[in-house]
Amino acid sequence: MGEKIQQIYEPLNSSTAIALVNRLGLFPENSALTCSEIGDGNLNYVFHIVDAGTGKGIIIKQALPYAKVVGESWPLTLKRAVIEANALKIFGSFCPELVPKVYYSDEQLAITVMEDLSHLKIARTGLIEEEEYPLLSKHIGQYLAKTFFYTSDFFLEPGKKKDFAKQFTNPELCKITEDLVFSDPFFDAETNDFESALRQDAETLWADEKLKLEAAKLKKSFMTEQEVLLHGDLHTGSIFASAEETKVIDPEFAFYGPAGFDLGQYLANLIFQVISRKGSSRENIYAHLKEVWETFEDEFSRLWKEEGKEVYCKTQGYLEYILEKTFTDSLGFAGCELIRRTIGLAHVKDLDSIAHEAERIHAKRTALQLGRALIINRQQEARIESLETIVKDSLLAASLS
Amino acid sequence: MGEKIQQIYEPLNSSTAIALVNRLGLFPENSALTCSEIGDGNLNYVFHIVDAGTGKGIIIKQALPYAKVVGESWPLTLKRAVIEANALKIFGSFCPELVPKVYYSDEQLAITVMEDLSHLKIARTGLIEEEEYPLLSKHIGQYLAKTFFYTSDFFLEPGKKKDFAKQFTNPELCKITEDLVFSDPFFDAETNDFESALRQDAETLWADEKLKLEAAKLKKSFMTEQEVLLHGDLHTGSIFASAEETKVIDPEFAFYGPAGFDLGQYLANLIFQVISRKGSSRENIYAHLKEVWETFEDEFSRLWKEEGKEVYCKTQGYLEYILEKTFTDSLGFAGCELIRRTIGLAHVKDLDSIAHEAERIHAKRTALQLGRALIINRQQEARIESLETIVKDSLLAASLS
Repeated sequence: MGEKIQQIYEPLNSSTAIALVNRLGLFPENSALTCSEIGDGNLNYVFHIVDAGTGKGIIIKQALPYAKVVGESWPLTLKRAVIEANALKIFGSFCPELVPKVYYSDEQLAITVMEDLSHLKIARTGLIEEEEYPLLSKHIGQYLAKTFFYTSDFFLEPGKKKDFAKQFTNPELCKITEDLVFSDPFFDAETNDFESALRQDAETLWADEKLKLEAAKLKKSFMTEQEVLLHGDLHTGSIFASAEETKVIDPEFAFYGPAGFDLGQYLANLIFQVISRKGSSRENIYAHLKEVWETFEDEFSRLWKEEGKEVYCKTQGYLEYILEKTFTDSLGFAGCELIRRTIGLAHVKDLDSIAHEAERIHAKRTALQLGRALIINRQQEARIESLETIVKDSLLAASLS
Repeated sequence: MGEKIQQIYEPLNSSTAIALVNRLGLFPENSALTCSEIGDGNLNYVFHIVDAGTGKGIIIKQALPYAKVVGESWPLTLKRAVIEANALKIFGSFCPELVPKVYYSDEQLAITVMEDLSHLKIARTGLIEEEEYPLLSKHIGQYLAKTFFYTSDFFLEPGKKKDFAKQFTNPELCKITEDLVFSDPFFDAETNDFESALRQDAETLWADEKLKLEAAKLKKSFMTEQEVLLHGDLHTGSIFASAEETKVIDPEFAFYGPAGFDLGQYLANLIFQVISRKGSSRENIYAHLKEVWETFEDEFSRLWKEEGKEVYCKTQGYLEYILEKTFTDSLGFAGCELIRRTIGLAHVKDLDSIAHEAERIHAKRTALQLGRALIINRQQEARIESLETIVKDSLLAASLS
């Protein structure tokens, strides 16, 4: 190890990873440590180091300078590791119980050493298995309320907020979202990926100028509105959960953007569960949709009233305006997520794992129709109950078509 | 001079200013140079150096580390000199004929050496004297179209735009606008300054929750929407003009903000002329209001169609949406400017120089009413003709009250 490893990036392996945690003194001396690389993403190494004696573990996450999915041909900034570590620290300062603890981070090596959460399951996996997470959406609602409020101009001194916005300028990862969420799925782009049975649906969508105009506005909002420090990729694969615990991980896409974006991605990924489930097991997910919004609304309103620093926080109707804007934005962003996960580059297991082809195509068609409905109608729907209505209407329409 | 002056800030005086231009070789050797400090602002020194032989001059602007108006008690960042010099260079790259040339800038000394424009008059002064500027609003419309388009996501590569936004993070000067334009005039703040005859009007305004809600939204837009690189202080005192020429100066408030802000400040400062003029001489100003918008609209639309890089530039209705948003935002920002220049800290000579007290109070009351109308009704008014109607209605209402 020594000085050199502090200066130059090199990928860790099991033995250098163990040497690092020993150097940091994160385990008692002479612990019998084992190390395995457990990353299932395509952008990072994830080393799980366990003390065989006590069973206690820690995680070392190291950013790779390229995306594994396409070999070394897609270079990616290592700065995202710094963004992630700093975002975890900031989010952890508002809701320590909902974010993994960071023990150490190293900018040159692009690593973050953090809490081992291997006793939890990725929420997407658990939801697909129809596990119940009675606290998940309450926790996410609290997480969103706190991270939104405490990083906004309603609480932060304006200069401090501008410092944060500068620090979290994240052009490379924002570009991925700008292209893969907001642009490519709405055009006949090379990155798109879908079953040939969906070609007609995709072509109809690409020709839908009304939809594209609204997608353009949502992309513009994503690119210009510095409302809050976002997670930036808050789908159910970025959440570890159990019946008791919830931990939001992987904020490497963090940047200052529109508050509705994180909420919208979470809503959309719950909606994939509504679409892929059958019958009464959908009700559980409708309850999640309602709970995340209602918890967010209650907690954000409480923070606004008790801790709002902006002089206009006391102005009649301003809180309601912010809540309504956040909600309607989130429906639009949810619509984009539904569409891009269906015909864009990166899919979700919720839909792709439906074995029966006709059922899978039907589910994807429903996702596209629902995505469109949310984007087009978002301004008319100012209440969470409307979301359930839109979803149910789309499911009904799809079942009749 | 030597090394030391490159390292440490110190205020220039006439002899060090002359030594600087000699060192830079901006005049022929052995020229007989005279120097006078001509700054009439309160934030900067402005040295005018003239070659007595040829009559040619140059300007050295040096930022002061405090605001002169309140002695040394209001410290101000010197970084604004760098912001100003860099903004002049960027704006000048799009419309060289509308911005002073920058010959040299020095970050440590907080100076910008630039083109001498002393053959021109400050537009506010000329307008008060009822000089005609047949090209002024055409030039400003072109300036706005080019600076907006070429610094927006519609043209710039997204990473480059984010670099610019970071570079032009300008918290101290934005804070002045946030407080003095968007907050203080709408509350009983200590910075406010108005004749006692206006107290009742001010108190009515401070109790107007409907108005304050809209002001809150405009402040939020100013603080969060990174649409374009703004001048940030584009009133008629920031413009040099003659019958043939127009030069936009002093962009020390430059930052990435909502496109309608610069346009709104320019509109409002023209409207002060409508209010302070009488009878048919108002028509000239109505023509300016129409011309700046129509030139902006035409030129921005042309750039969008010919050079738009954003994939959605071809989507039906998107250009119209952007134009409408820019226009309605600008009406709201114009309303804030009308109000803050009337009861806030910094006034305009257009109104303050009206000698007859009853006339002056009447004019200011009109400005307040018109400011309110523009802020409240901005969403309903999507055409430039409506602006003239609102202005005329307010003048009529004021004359009857």
